[in-house]
Amino acid sequence: MNEFDIIDQFLNIKTGQRKDVIKGIGDDCALVKVPRGQRLALSMDTLIAGVHFLADANAADVAHKAVAVNLSDLSAAGAEPAWITVSLSLPEFDENWLMDFHRGLKKIADFFTVQVIGGDTCRGPLSITIQAHGFVPENVFLQRSTAQAGELICVTGNLGDAALGLKVAQGDLQVPPNVASQLLKKYYTPYPRVAAGIVLRGRATAAIDISDGLLADVNHISQQSGVGALLRWERIPLSKEAQSLDNEEMVMRAALTGGDDYELCFTVDEDELESTKQALETVGIDCIPIGRLTGKPGVRLLHHKEELTVEALGYSHF
Amino acid sequence: MNEFDIIDQFLNIKTGQRKDVIKGIGDDCALVKVPRGQRLALSMDTLIAGVHFLADANAADVAHKAVAVNLSDLSAAGAEPAWITVSLSLPEFDENWLMDFHRGLKKIADFFTVQVIGGDTCRGPLSITIQAHGFVPENVFLQRSTAQAGELICVTGNLGDAALGLKVAQGDLQVPPNVASQLLKKYYTPYPRVAAGIVLRGRATAAIDISDGLLADVNHISQQSGVGALLRWERIPLSKEAQSLDNEEMVMRAALTGGDDYELCFTVDEDELESTKQALETVGIDCIPIGRLTGKPGVRLLHHKEELTVEALGYSHF
Repeated sequence: MNEFDIIDQFLNIKTGQRKDVIKGIGDDCALVKVPRGQRLALSMDTLIAGVHFLADANAADVAHKAVAVNLSDLSAAGAEPAWITVSLSLPEFDENWLMDFHRGLKKIADFFTVQVIGGDTCRGPLSITIQAHGFVPENVFLQRSTAQAGELICVTGNLGDAALGLKVAQGDLQVPPNVASQLLKKYYTPYPRVAAGIVLRGRATAAIDISDGLLADVNHISQQSGVGALLRWERIPLSKEAQSLDNEEMVMRAALTGGDDYELCFTVDEDELESTKQALETVGIDCIPIGRLTGKPGVRLLHHKEELTVEALGYSHF
Repeated sequence: MNEFDIIDQFLNIKTGQRKDVIKGIGDDCALVKVPRGQRLALSMDTLIAGVHFLADANAADVAHKAVAVNLSDLSAAGAEPAWITVSLSLPEFDENWLMDFHRGLKKIADFFTVQVIGGDTCRGPLSITIQAHGFVPENVFLQRSTAQAGELICVTGNLGDAALGLKVAQGDLQVPPNVASQLLKKYYTPYPRVAAGIVLRGRATAAIDISDGLLADVNHISQQSGVGALLRWERIPLSKEAQSLDNEEMVMRAALTGGDDYELCFTVDEDELESTKQALETVGIDCIPIGRLTGKPGVRLLHHKEELTVEALGYSHF
């Protein structure tokens, strides 16, 4: 089976053809149409086996996650996903792996009504690069750099489950089976907050998806907006599974620095909090205030009454 | 230096900002505007060290080639390049390599007035994925599948030099220094036929860039158009460097099956040949007829008066 057959058989999803796709997979280029009045938002991310996912992970989950991380970036911009392109590097032709990959790709593409319009495949170390494309009007495009001091910092859901799930997957954390199953699901197959991003258009003053970890991502908003941030330890939302674990430090570390939950973090004017909560409720998504932007540079965390700076927390990776 | 610094310092080209780029590198998404009346053509290709380029190749040349192969796909569609996104996987932080990469990226981006609007970087086996985006009106988008029997098959320039250059680079071919220098240049830094693609809008009946090798790429047009092809051995254009080598079989094998020249192969109605030649002349590009599409399936090659089928040529890679 050659490169072109692999692309056609395993990357080309033949259902769910979109009307804005004039030419999909199969030529030198894809050709698409951006609707009038919309701008094109795009994001590209590479996942490498052993770095971004476990080398023995199920291929359907790998496909899911590779798409999810890119759609999560679109969500953070308030964009509505439309098309993806997929480049897959594989050490050897493995039909079972490819069938699983195709299944995972099809499932998430269908779920979000996105079409795979371009593909590339070659022999090499296992890695997947996906670029996602979506639509958003220019004046409601959400960015990191547009927040102001005084605004509230919110997130769309529980934090830390995916990082705890990774520990379970790696055998570093022993938990009851029902807890394990929930945490693993959050790690392997996160669902990006696409609907939240669209609802937050014109409401959030800035947004980012939590892919590097809450503290790092709040730091991105703070730095790029030229403000500081004060987060409250006790407001960080945790799932009942995370709360059931008898190790607060590990759980909070996961919530503050684990980045695989793909929730959105956004800022909102205090007067807009209630209407934003109600709007997010219409798409079944929570709006949880966890702190506030301040005029004092840096990200700080209020732990009961003690103030910790992010540097003092000793998380070295940002 | 972290991921974000690397992206900002080495992938973000700070000159040549385009007016259609609303937001470039530095947020979750880039935001761009497709001009009214234009469709968006896009192509993604991954190059892996040791597979698509020599692991010790100069990083400026690697950057050049990674962009060139993608712009070549746009050319084949008749699209005018606008933006690229770059994902770079590197085994370790190597400032000199990254400075060279940046220099090569900047040079070709400036040459073709394309802007790098998105970047991703991570630690992993050396590879580069680039997606190129360009504009083309829907009714003049060039495809592979639209050729008809009786039309002429043409190419835009000499074939085989890049494949011979690879042999020189690998030490498998000894040639005089001036010949080596020309062949190596064609292999390391091909210039995609962007202007030709634009000129061929509305003139060529089908087009492809020669990336898999002439025979394989003519086969793509033939198969996807449901016709056959008859090429003439003696019409295949060779550079004076290739002609100077005393090994016709090796040279012709390079010209017929080497794919790294990134010339365009296109089909044209016989009545349009002269006007097409004149139009390509205005951008300094040749138009060389090398055969004709036929009603008989398969790609055949007329070698003096002997007819060879492509299968009989024993080139196994397609």
